[in-house]
Amino acid sequence: MTGKNELLERIEERYDGMSKSQKKLADYIRSSYEKAVFMTAARLGDVVGVSESTVVRFASGLGYKGYPQFQKALEELVSNRLNFIQRMEVTYGRISQSEILMSVLQSDIEKIKLTMEHIDQNAFETAVDTILNARKIYIVGIRSCATLANFLGFYLNLIRDNVVSVDTNSSSEIFEQIIRITEEDVIIGISFPRYSMRTLKALEFANNQGAKIITLTDSVHSPMNLYSSCSLIARSDMTSIVDSLVAPLSVINALVVALCMKKQDEVVDTLGTLEQIWDEYQVYSSDELHPVRDKIPLHFPDQKKVNDQRRTEWEKQ
Amino acid sequence: MTGKNELLERIEERYDGMSKSQKKLADYIRSSYEKAVFMTAARLGDVVGVSESTVVRFASGLGYKGYPQFQKALEELVSNRLNFIQRMEVTYGRISQSEILMSVLQSDIEKIKLTMEHIDQNAFETAVDTILNARKIYIVGIRSCATLANFLGFYLNLIRDNVVSVDTNSSSEIFEQIIRITEEDVIIGISFPRYSMRTLKALEFANNQGAKIITLTDSVHSPMNLYSSCSLIARSDMTSIVDSLVAPLSVINALVVALCMKKQDEVVDTLGTLEQIWDEYQVYSSDELHPVRDKIPLHFPDQKKVNDQRRTEWEKQ
Amino acid sequence: MTGKNELLERIEERYDGMSKSQKKLADYIRSSYEKAVFMTAARLGDVVGVSESTVVRFASGLGYKGYPQFQKALEELVSNRLNFIQRMEVTYGRISQSEILMSVLQSDIEKIKLTMEHIDQNAFETAVDTILNARKIYIVGIRSCATLANFLGFYLNLIRDNVVSVDTNSSSEIFEQIIRITEEDVIIGISFPRYSMRTLKALEFANNQGAKIITLTDSVHSPMNLYSSCSLIARSDMTSIVDSLVAPLSVINALVVALCMKKQDEVVDTLGTLEQIWDEYQVYSSDELHPVRDKIPLHFPDQKKVNDQRRTEWEKQ
Amino acid sequence: MTGKNELLERIEERYDGMSKSQKKLADYIRSSYEKAVFMTAARLGDVVGVSESTVVRFASGLGYKGYPQFQKALEELVSNRLNFIQRMEVTYGRISQSEILMSVLQSDIEKIKLTMEHIDQNAFETAVDTILNARKIYIVGIRSCATLANFLGFYLNLIRDNVVSVDTNSSSEIFEQIIRITEEDVIIGISFPRYSMRTLKALEFANNQGAKIITLTDSVHSPMNLYSSCSLIARSDMTSIVDSLVAPLSVINALVVALCMKKQDEVVDTLGTLEQIWDEYQVYSSDELHPVRDKIPLHFPDQKKVNDQRRTEWEKQ
Repeated sequence: MTGKNELLERIEERYDGMSKSQKKLADYIRSSYEKAVFMTAARLGDVVGVSESTVVRFASGLGYKGYPQFQKALEELVSNRLNFIQRMEVTYGRISQSEILMSVLQSDIEKIKLTMEHIDQNAFETAVDTILNARKIYIVGIRSCATLANFLGFYLNLIRDNVVSVDTNSSSEIFEQIIRITEEDVIIGISFPRYSMRTLKALEFANNQGAKIITLTDSVHSPMNLYSSCSLIARSDMTSIVDSLVAPLSVINALVVALCMKKQDEVVDTLGTLEQIWDEYQVYSSDELHPVRDKIPLHFPDQKKVNDQRRTEWEKQ
Repeated sequence: MTGKNELLERIEERYDGMSKSQKKLADYIRSSYEKAVFMTAARLGDVVGVSESTVVRFASGLGYKGYPQFQKALEELVSNRLNFIQRMEVTYGRISQSEILMSVLQSDIEKIKLTMEHIDQNAFETAVDTILNARKIYIVGIRSCATLANFLGFYLNLIRDNVVSVDTNSSSEIFEQIIRITEEDVIIGISFPRYSMRTLKALEFANNQGAKIITLTDSVHSPMNLYSSCSLIARSDMTSIVDSLVAPLSVINALVVALCMKKQDEVVDTLGTLEQIWDEYQVYSSDELHPVRDKIPLHFPDQKKVNDQRRTEWEKQ
Repeated sequence: MTGKNELLERIEERYDGMSKSQKKLADYIRSSYEKAVFMTAARLGDVVGVSESTVVRFASGLGYKGYPQFQKALEELVSNRLNFIQRMEVTYGRISQSEILMSVLQSDIEKIKLTMEHIDQNAFETAVDTILNARKIYIVGIRSCATLANFLGFYLNLIRDNVVSVDTNSSSEIFEQIIRITEEDVIIGISFPRYSMRTLKALEFANNQGAKIITLTDSVHSPMNLYSSCSLIARSDMTSIVDSLVAPLSVINALVVALCMKKQDEVVDTLGTLEQIWDEYQVYSSDELHPVRDKIPLHFPDQKKVNDQRRTEWEKQ
Repeated sequence: MTGKNELLERIEERYDGMSKSQKKLADYIRSSYEKAVFMTAARLGDVVGVSESTVVRFASGLGYKGYPQFQKALEELVSNRLNFIQRMEVTYGRISQSEILMSVLQSDIEKIKLTMEHIDQNAFETAVDTILNARKIYIVGIRSCATLANFLGFYLNLIRDNVVSVDTNSSSEIFEQIIRITEEDVIIGISFPRYSMRTLKALEFANNQGAKIITLTDSVHSPMNLYSSCSLIARSDMTSIVDSLVAPLSVINALVVALCMKKQDEVVDTLGTLEQIWDEYQVYSSDELHPVRDKIPLHFPDQKKVNDQRRTEWEKQ
């Protein structure tokens, strides 16, 4: 695993001699190669604001025979995660830990703002209605997106029936779980760079079975939208090793609230029944803390004092 | 399950006749009863900005014999989730679905801002160092917090060794998984209102074994902090049925970035080894999408046009 | 945790002076207290082959005021798992490791034989038909029984639609997953000594909703059968710390085969579709090993020679 | 998906005219192609009891240019699961459901018997000691074998520290979980026909890192043994769509008992601590049913009468 990536090196060498348009392209590729890799020359031009021929010339100017070879180089750049580490070094390399904290939180605020500006509100409303009217809902999210998929599934399950949180685990492959999907069903695919192949294939299959596809992804250019009729776009972040799923989670919150508001009576019923069950069937009480019943000491000392005390002890170690 | 909760009704009946201090108390209880339930009269007074005796008189003014009975009524209010539905109705009852979307996203932005204002930066730095120096890390998060626990565990596993994402599932109870925790280990407890009893008990046990406790919770008054030496406070939201875990997730992002920056060489090594493995051992390629290799069609039509077209078809159905 | 259990000690002290009937009772209690604990005096008498009054006198003869106190002592015996360790010491304490191997395997053979002798064949056939005709199937198995539940769910999913393997995990409690069960559905409860309370409660709830209950458990006296209309009885073993689930697993095998034979066309279809999918959608090939395609070296040396060689190296360490 | 497989058809056409040796080969291939596919001509000859040249001539006699082409045909036979359905039809096609029950149970007894005859007792004892002395244990089992892996992991966790049940799920791939394995560690690979590629690759990687490999598989010829120093052989069954894991489960039982016997004091300690915890920390009581405490009605009517009654009602529907 050699140091810097070849494509990035070539860009760096030639950067100063580039035209304004070319610099725009170079900047975009350096900061968003995981998006660029999925674009045709035309689209890349669109996104950056230059002509398609400028893009093609840019690629050959870097020494690549044609755009396909340039794309291969991009692909190599993307698949090598070390490049993400280097990008992270650039962003966070010279600031202190607490500055990292504030920097990340601020960055997440920005992502939600950008999401607010760009999300398609019609798509949101379509998603809500589609989810309510579906016979069965499948939710697919792999790796870090499993987090979001399980969260959404957890709440959808309280709101309606027939919700399946598809999960690849040691036992079942994705396809075995969605094999009976029909045009009466809906599949929600959640995927962010660098995108999941299995998720995309699942959406492709579902689409061929006539099911409705809703995607939650980072950009209208995301390959996840290839089969989707309803795309919810939320910004994620590739400046570090961790995908920031804060904006997508916020969109999911909104989805759940909107669904609850439309299905209030049913939710009230379900929650009511659950409350009854916990009493009636004398199951161990719900896991929720009851200070009186569970005799939680309420006279705990001033928290900050204790914290500082304990921390001092740790630091001595 | 009768309509409105008795305590809330009593407050409503007497509200107009209340003094300014009493109204402050009433407002706080109506909006944050899931926090108030864990407070002594003194602390509740502190938080709202009134004297302890005001709090006690408030309780008897509502018709409760003493503060304990008032607390029991609070507990009943908290355990009945329908009250959360009613609070949600108040907030979202009269706005449209798209307004719900913007409202939730904006609210999540506010929560991150409040988190930035109040989070203890020393605690953050202590958490980072503690996590790096621990012999073994246990992460506990139940129900919706499992989302956060799994996400944190996923990344910690790439950064260091011996990370256990404790999970109650059909097979193992929490205690069976943390039974061998010692003073060389760290446990990270993640819990938001209405708080998890099992998580608290796990922290209590770990504390008695001498382990270091780090908590990620919503308030310094959270009972989760009873045993914690290092509390990371991130705002969550109880205005709806769904806990907003956006601010906690953002804090976790920051934690992961800070840890990566401190352990860059190890992370680079691990990722490098993983890349090699995928080549060398000819395992099916990593799930990550490679547009060239996976022949993803890049010439997909203008996304918005397709979206609108498909959506039109759905609406006709 | 004191040494021997008090009830067992009392039995041991008085054993030699017991009548033949009393010795039968004593023997049964010593070897099967986890079953005895759930029996009335009448039933215990039935099972052992003595009169109810003999059982009552036996209890007072041991120094217990009445049968309820004797039951409490039984309960204490059961809940202390150390007693199972002691029982294991009796069975395996004086034999070598290889003898343990043969002894356990032989014991598992015996359990399947006993199962063959006692299983209700009508119940088996009813179970098969009930599973095929159900609108939705829920499978509940906790802790070591989760193993069986997941296995059954894995195969049922290939045979028919709408199969839910209920699982308590960090996110969802059992009741949240079965809350919408109706009389058109079936729930399969799998539980062996010392039996799961949550499973029993789930069956109780399902029964009250009018659903059909099928149980897989160790004895007709099992409390799991309280609500069941269709009990499949397979022997398990409490001579050691581990529940032998070999006989239950064998019964599940039979269930799956019988279901496949009845639904051959559907299974053929599903498998056929899965095969097509793996080709067509160019998902990474199924995980199954293909020696030619995966270039598995077939010229591996004489296995036994290599084994012995490697083992010699280990033993030197 | 055409009807019968071509290789099987060729065998069927030529069967009557075959020599005794050739018929032995044909029979073996028809009943065990999923094993044959992994064998060289020499090994296949060994197993069946004919010479290598006989095997080669058999292949060309069927119309295949050379042994490699014959192997490809075998591979096609194996990968098409419909052939397993057909084999199941042969075995179970003409018997009633109850006969299926007895037939499967009896067949599972036979498999345990065969396991008893052929298992390497030295390997068993080596496995026990190796597991006890390892720094860290990884257990890998995919798909139906996940059942066994989780079961083993559940009990190993009560017996010793640092046990990781590797699980591919939506979040982590296998390699990410075993990346830090060293020569002080042990990996237990569990795989039965048609064998898991990911499991084999994991064992290959672990072997290169110098770790000790223990396998639980169906035959000494299993490719899983390529890297193993300690192979526990237990018969499985491919007469139906379901892998019978009864014999492997029995071997795991024996392993757990043997480990408990060697580590009695530690197990006693752990269980004792767990018992204390459930009392002391006032967690909801363990899930285990306590008839007195949980007020389980013990006066339940004669089970068989109720069963028959309920079943009659079902059948009327």
